[in-house]
Amino acid sequence: MTIRLAICGYGNLGRGVEQAALAAPDMEPVVVFTRRDPDTLETLGTPAASVDDMEQWKDRVDVCLCCGGSATDLAEQVPAALRYFPTVDSFDTHAKIPEYFASCDEAAREAGTAALISVGWDPGLFSLTRLLGQAVLPDSLEETFWGKGVSQGHSDALRRIEGVVGAVQYTVPRPEALEAVRSGQATEPAEARAKHTRECYVVAADGADRERIREEIVSMPNYFADYDTTVTFISAEELERDHQGMPHGGSVLRRGHTAGGSAAGIEFSLDLESNPQFTGAVVTACGRALYRLVSGGVTGALTLFDVPLGSLHPGAPEELRAQLL
Amino acid sequence: MTIRLAICGYGNLGRGVEQAALAAPDMEPVVVFTRRDPDTLETLGTPAASVDDMEQWKDRVDVCLCCGGSATDLAEQVPAALRYFPTVDSFDTHAKIPEYFASCDEAAREAGTAALISVGWDPGLFSLTRLLGQAVLPDSLEETFWGKGVSQGHSDALRRIEGVVGAVQYTVPRPEALEAVRSGQATEPAEARAKHTRECYVVAADGADRERIREEIVSMPNYFADYDTTVTFISAEELERDHQGMPHGGSVLRRGHTAGGSAAGIEFSLDLESNPQFTGAVVTACGRALYRLVSGGVTGALTLFDVPLGSLHPGAPEELRAQLL
Ligand SMILES: NC(=O)c1ccc[n+]([C@@H]2O[C@H](COP(=O)([O-])OP(=O)(O)OC[C@H]3O[C@@H](n4cnc5c(N)ncnc54)[C@H](OP(=O)(O)O)[C@@H]3O)[C@@H](O)[C@H]2O)c1
Ligand SMILES: NC(=O)c1ccc[n+]([C@@H]2O[C@H](COP(=O)([O-])OP(=O)(O)OC[C@H]3O[C@@H](n4cnc5c(N)ncnc54)[C@H](OP(=O)(O)O)[C@@H]3O)[C@@H](O)[C@H]2O)c1
Repeated sequence: MTIRLAICGYGNLGRGVEQAALAAPDMEPVVVFTRRDPDTLETLGTPAASVDDMEQWKDRVDVCLCCGGSATDLAEQVPAALRYFPTVDSFDTHAKIPEYFASCDEAAREAGTAALISVGWDPGLFSLTRLLGQAVLPDSLEETFWGKGVSQGHSDALRRIEGVVGAVQYTVPRPEALEAVRSGQATEPAEARAKHTRECYVVAADGADRERIREEIVSMPNYFADYDTTVTFISAEELERDHQGMPHGGSVLRRGHTAGGSAAGIEFSLDLESNPQFTGAVVTACGRALYRLVSGGVTGALTLFDVPLGSLHPGAPEELRAQLL
Repeated sequence: MTIRLAICGYGNLGRGVEQAALAAPDMEPVVVFTRRDPDTLETLGTPAASVDDMEQWKDRVDVCLCCGGSATDLAEQVPAALRYFPTVDSFDTHAKIPEYFASCDEAAREAGTAALISVGWDPGLFSLTRLLGQAVLPDSLEETFWGKGVSQGHSDALRRIEGVVGAVQYTVPRPEALEAVRSGQATEPAEARAKHTRECYVVAADGADRERIREEIVSMPNYFADYDTTVTFISAEELERDHQGMPHGGSVLRRGHTAGGSAAGIEFSLDLESNPQFTGAVVTACGRALYRLVSGGVTGALTLFDVPLGSLHPGAPEELRAQLL
């Protein structure tokens, strides 16, 4: 039996999900829902349909993987999709997770189905590491480092500056800050500036005042003012040639002591050439898990903290025990 | 409400569990079961009782954490304890897990309770990483490296050699082998010799033939013959002074490609000054999880693959979502 997947929203993540779903032995992407004209969508083969026609797919889809943006799409998209399908999403606005969870929980219960929210790598696999670390080694320091990777939000902020025609921002962890946690030298959380630097590659409009642009960037509150930020002006060709990838990753580090007083360190790291492709793979595996949970009668909103991880894997439980334990 | 824990078997791990349980905000060790005379046991304060008197504790214990040795103790100890309590253990004889699971499953179902088996770090947290890696990044190479750490089994093998009065063996991962996986250069699993070296520190009896001892060690099948093994003779004082710790740890590395063809790497590492204290912390957190699962009606044998990881943490689900996701 093949799990029939819908993909809702076809940007970077939607495509990453389609790729992962096409490669999965037990799942199949059967439709992509989009707000755009479905005929204009170039998928890898999955038929496209309008988000307005979701209802027609009610009996032909087992799980809907919602790939809209966290800023504005998902809060509408997921409750709407929940009327017809169980949903998985990668909502990553950390501060808004409680209210988002509550609204998905309500919509899912009303429809008698379930929503697995905020999966991916952060939130997602990094969250699982933070949880395990705190459960097992409560007396310790924990830090999450991101990068080296492209921050979409910071890149967007650069592009909004007058005179900027293209830009990309890399978040870069400071090796000495990582090493301080790893070695046990650090005893309390470092401040923002000590953990990461920010590297901006900017294409300026002809005749734009580069010094003013640089000044606006490095002094921008919330985004750059609290960091050591470098600004490098490049040509449109260089941006196109050298900065089209979406690499990301990072590490969750935990260092402290057991209750008996012995030192212990836990570290989980990801190094991803394509953030959306890897996130898409996690979302897809979570589609499998949610299908199984819903088949077992689960309803309401869930996070990865509620999911037995064996359910993410296509193998039978006895195989997993024999081969992976 | 406090979760009342029994500890069955009081060796290194039993003590590590007692330490972790004493530090937990929501659990309490109420009894240690031992095969020895309970009056001879020096615990950290938890009363000791004979394993033969388990039944008397039936209504005063919520979960029994079984800390016997995997080689011979657990296969008897756990089914016996299951008659009265849900159990957690850290059974680590990988090849025998399927048959061990089956016998615990039967005993647990018969008693209407549950057994969470093979928790710790390997099997345990490393197994979870292997599972997640395979579920998310199926097209990749995976290697587990152990150490630098003390292997109890290999140390025991040294001590059985004639003329050896004391010994300890460290398993040491080769940095170049780790780096080959991490960088993506390695494309298939390395053979044993290429991944780890073995360092033996041996105290020889007065007048023993050291060359013969060295020869017996490096040529010992299964244990040392397939590795580059160094043998260093030390004094009894040096063994006592420099080699009493039980450090361990290691890394699970996974490197490959997403379905869309982009490179991706996953790495989980532990660096533990005390293997039994850290393992004890995992076993104790799993006691909390099992208590919650059993309260929800779960029966039979389980592994960490079946456990929602949120249940290992003392916090309420809404706190975990707000703070850790
Ligand atoms: N948890 C994690 O670890 C993690 C990691 C990475 C990303 N994420 C989340 O994933 C979300 C989606 O990321 P993304 O990179 O896929 O965003 P994106 O490419 O901007 O796509 C977002 C939406 O915009 C629309 N869209 C995409 N391309 C378009 C185009 N050329 N013209 C017009 N509309 C277009 C699509 O909806 P329609 O098809 O309906 O038009 C799509 O669903 C992010 O907001 C982030 O929150 C989470
Ligand atoms: N999954 C993992 O990651 C992981 C990691 C580490 C260890 N482990 C497992 O944990 C098991 C237990 O390890 P351990 O280091 O606690 O083994 P251990 O110290 O040898 O203890 C094993 C048992 O031997 C008895 N014992 C201990 N000290 C004794 C003494 N001085 N005299 C007589 N008997 C004594 C105790 O039973 P009584 O109190 O009944 O006499 C104890 O339960 C290992 O076999 C291993 O399989 C698993």
